[in-house]
Amino acid sequence: MSNALDKLFATIAARKGSDPSQSYTAKLLAQGVEKCAKKFGEEATEAVIAAVQKDKTELAKESADVLYHLLVLWAASGITPEEVYTVLQSREGQSGLEEKASRPKT
Amino acid sequence: MSNALDKLFATIAARKGSDPSQSYTAKLLAQGVEKCAKKFGEEATEAVIAAVQKDKTELAKESADVLYHLLVLWAASGITPEEVYTVLQSREGQSGLEEKASRPKT
Amino acid sequence: MSNALDKLFATIAARKGSDPSQSYTAKLLAQGVEKCAKKFGEEATEAVIAAVQKDKTELAKESADVLYHLLVLWAASGITPEEVYTVLQSREGQSGLEEKASRPKT
Amino acid sequence: MSNALDKLFATIAARKGSDPSQSYTAKLLAQGVEKCAKKFGEEATEAVIAAVQKDKTELAKESADVLYHLLVLWAASGITPEEVYTVLQSREGQSGLEEKASRPKT
Repeated sequence: MSNALDKLFATIAARKGSDPSQSYTAKLLAQGVEKCAKKFGEEATEAVIAAVQKDKTELAKESADVLYHLLVLWAASGITPEEVYTVLQSREGQSGLEEKASRPKT
Repeated sequence: MSNALDKLFATIAARKGSDPSQSYTAKLLAQGVEKCAKKFGEEATEAVIAAVQKDKTELAKESADVLYHLLVLWAASGITPEEVYTVLQSREGQSGLEEKASRPKT
Repeated sequence: MSNALDKLFATIAARKGSDPSQSYTAKLLAQGVEKCAKKFGEEATEAVIAAVQKDKTELAKESADVLYHLLVLWAASGITPEEVYTVLQSREGQSGLEEKASRPKT
Repeated sequence: MSNALDKLFATIAARKGSDPSQSYTAKLLAQGVEKCAKKFGEEATEAVIAAVQKDKTELAKESADVLYHLLVLWAASGITPEEVYTVLQSREGQSGLEEKASRPKT
């Protein structure tokens, strides 16, 4: 991934307020958070299906769609990759990847 | 994000075959692709809910969960971040972020 | 299905306000709409997985879970089966099952 | 709901093998289980969003879409409403609605 997601997020965030007729991203963002959340949810379902079908090529494609639409959702919601990165870091710092197991799941 | 996801993926991939009783990640991986896909789908739904509720703090947390479980799904499925990165790159290369709009959606 | 869902909904709706420690349904309802929506989303993902795996027995079980949690979501949200039934009827009335195809999908 | 779902399922099942150009249902069924599962997953996400937004009218509409696409998924997968009904009945019979709480959730 390296800096790919950071660059992609910068490109997406720059589309906010652009002409929706000129860009798929600008159109999505103009339709609001609910629409962006819906698209993200759709792509997540497609990634689940590809994984269960053991179709690696399709899973890579759907994962790219998941990541793209997750970043769009962040831009639409006003959060940054850094905020998500901080959460990932803090978990790693506290107790490693095992942290999640100890979190109360309601 | 920078290299955070690459590092996280390396850590996750290294748990494959580890003692499931010692690690949440090892346990998830030992349960197979379907279980990993299910967990990823759950976290995606929680991110959707946080976004629609306009809860930025929760969206950042759930997004971290989405990313973690997406990487677990890749490890379980035998694909690498590079393969997903290549898909993202090729779309950007071809026609920018607008590429998706022109893809046939079945 | 016959009247099974109507009866199930009546039982669920009657749990609203009951002691959460005595009933799974009462507990879910007490946790609010977001929690009920999350559980419904989880079961939907599991039904998707069972279907893609071509596991009929599992699909029947997960479908039962989907229906149960959908009814819980209705009770939590304050809508009735009749309201959903009316929507289904109106589509059938207008133009048959084909109606959906003509609806604008945003 | 009463017999509405049974009638709807009979109509859907009768479209299996019909001309896909003449019917949305026939088209969906012709595209296979994965496509039907994907559409069901999309509608489930939309119901989740409507519920979290506290939009009752939208939740009723999306719930109708969920039910319709769930029945299509059953028809595509070769299961019947009776099989799902039997699962719901057996849970009710065993230990009431509380049964789910005692089931092992992996």
